[in-house]
Amino acid sequence: MHDVREITVMENIHGENDHIAYHINEDLTGKGIFVANVMGAPGIGKTTVIKNLIAKLRGHMPYVIEGDIESDIDTRALRAMGIKAFQINTFGACHLDAPLVHNAVQNIEFDEPGILFIENVGNLVCPAEFSIGEHTKILICSVTEGSDKPYKYPLAFEKAGMIILNKVDLAPYLEFDESFFMKGLRAINKNAPVIKASSKTGEGFEEAAGWLADQAAQALAGR
Amino acid sequence: MHDVREITVMENIHGENDHIAYHINEDLTGKGIFVANVMGAPGIGKTTVIKNLIAKLRGHMPYVIEGDIESDIDTRALRAMGIKAFQINTFGACHLDAPLVHNAVQNIEFDEPGILFIENVGNLVCPAEFSIGEHTKILICSVTEGSDKPYKYPLAFEKAGMIILNKVDLAPYLEFDESFFMKGLRAINKNAPVIKASSKTGEGFEEAAGWLADQAAQALAGR
Repeated sequence: MHDVREITVMENIHGENDHIAYHINEDLTGKGIFVANVMGAPGIGKTTVIKNLIAKLRGHMPYVIEGDIESDIDTRALRAMGIKAFQINTFGACHLDAPLVHNAVQNIEFDEPGILFIENVGNLVCPAEFSIGEHTKILICSVTEGSDKPYKYPLAFEKAGMIILNKVDLAPYLEFDESFFMKGLRAINKNAPVIKASSKTGEGFEEAAGWLADQAAQALAGR
Repeated sequence: MHDVREITVMENIHGENDHIAYHINEDLTGKGIFVANVMGAPGIGKTTVIKNLIAKLRGHMPYVIEGDIESDIDTRALRAMGIKAFQINTFGACHLDAPLVHNAVQNIEFDEPGILFIENVGNLVCPAEFSIGEHTKILICSVTEGSDKPYKYPLAFEKAGMIILNKVDLAPYLEFDESFFMKGLRAINKNAPVIKASSKTGEGFEEAAGWLADQAAQALAGR
């Protein structure tokens, strides 16, 4: 009885969420805004990856929404760099959802076409379950996490359009089994590019930015 | 309307959860089993910390329940070491709850008093919200995550009985601001010991095991 009721409510939430997500996507596509939902565990380097991608995507006006349970540390840092950044605090909730993003998007002036990065709450589970109007999901993982993550958190890996394997500069000090990682990943996601990156050496961001620019061009071509 | 209904269901879930958690704790305390709920982000080293603590807690019979969304990689590894390990798969859920743990505990033969480690799903958000019958919560974090985590994920830090700052061997290659970390942590948790640890050097586990043994002696003294 308890379980049945819980499932019914969850289905209602997902239906409503997806309906709002569809409208966010439609609205932003019309404005020439490509939306990337950036997911990954706490401390995996999501904000730093976004900064590095923005630096490489010179021809695209960047917008960032930061999703955090509490605090606005990253939003303040992005604004200090001159980036248009907006904060969503979930106050306990472990992921962003479409209604939260819808409210934020309503308050952003999109002066010109560009790319909106939405940094989800640091969590490798729930963010993958909720569409927030994105054109693609970027999953940030890291050699520091160990190579078994695609086996333990399959949904995030399955839904990713691009996977950034971050902090590869630390690989010499770790035992990261890349072939085990790739085997688990390719069992559930055949096509997403997997790009090794390091904010210390700058490796990988040119390639990742190129992939994003291609995706943006394709998604916005027909508008 | 939508929000009100959702909150009502969550309150019901928590009430039922806490009731079951209370009985798990009562039952296991009676059997001389001290229960530690081990929390932390994906890939932070929870299983390795548990192995290291078990190695230091020679006089205590160890039991382990592994909580994962999918897979039983860690349970198989623990069993291969001769440790009594049991698997809970949540198949999507981002945390363990008391009913899941209750079912697992019913199927474990506790031959003698000891310490039960329950490794929660890798997640820095939701596990902190649900009691699963534990005597204490151990939070594993790491210098690789960055020093802003107590500000962004306060509940997990607030509820921890002991905090293990893991992978300190990697600190020379990172910019971890320990005073900023401790300032954020102490604003919400005045008393929990914070123990620097490394599975590479072995640092910290003697101290952490000593704290756990003291807690177990106190919790089980009156039974």
